[in-house]
Amino acid sequence: MPATAPRVELLGTLGRMGFMAPDSVDDVLARLAFNEEGLVPAIAQQWDTHEVLMMAWMDEAAVRETLETGRGVYYSRSRGERWAKGDTSGHVQHVHELRVDCDGDTVLLLVDQVGAACHTGDRSCFDAFRALPAGGQA
Amino acid sequence: MPATAPRVELLGTLGRMGFMAPDSVDDVLARLAFNEEGLVPAIAQQWDTHEVLMMAWMDEAAVRETLETGRGVYYSRSRGERWAKGDTSGHVQHVHELRVDCDGDTVLLLVDQVGAACHTGDRSCFDAFRALPAGGQA
Repeated sequence: MPATAPRVELLGTLGRMGFMAPDSVDDVLARLAFNEEGLVPAIAQQWDTHEVLMMAWMDEAAVRETLETGRGVYYSRSRGERWAKGDTSGHVQHVHELRVDCDGDTVLLLVDQVGAACHTGDRSCFDAFRALPAGGQA
Repeated sequence: MPATAPRVELLGTLGRMGFMAPDSVDDVLARLAFNEEGLVPAIAQQWDTHEVLMMAWMDEAAVRETLETGRGVYYSRSRGERWAKGDTSGHVQHVHELRVDCDGDTVLLLVDQVGAACHTGDRSCFDAFRALPAGGQA
């Protein structure tokens, strides 16, 4: 059991509505539209610099474990198993906040990333390659 | 034909490598690992505030059109067709940069979003709902 229960909050056009009752992981799960594989894409963003670090997938149990432990937990489609970010590398993600998008099919995690988020050693998985569209600015 | 061809640049652990030759949309496409539906998830982030605005999908033609026009173009899985963001709402996305992640299966767009990115009228699709994990900070 976690030391403190997750809290859920509504934002949006009506503004902040205050915290909902604790032990509301089920409230979060009820908002999520998992795909036919039982997964949702999860974007991890560094909470203070706002750098987008990586995109991975979560199943229901990964969302639950993330909310209950405060650590980023994902589901590997290639290995067919859940993994807690940093268990091997030490590059753990402390999750400050989990957001759900308007239609419930994508999750945004605001995290404090220890070390590199990318398995290549880069801070972000998006550091490797960029293209500038026609008329784009560097 | 676009007025100016897209440019492609390598970043990453070796640092900036300078611009590659123009007309390199094919170089970008060659880096992308489209899924079994021929799509990649695309994250749109406001280029200056770094706010994550939305997540949508792109097929090969949407990537090409985005790079050639400098506007965010996506593929709607529900409607089965491409759409240029803002064609209906006027809330266009001017794309400054397109990044590809380490394994080529996700795209990050740095955009200048006119108005609301979300069809609900919210600036971001992630403004609607948030949960704070156990031990998380508001």
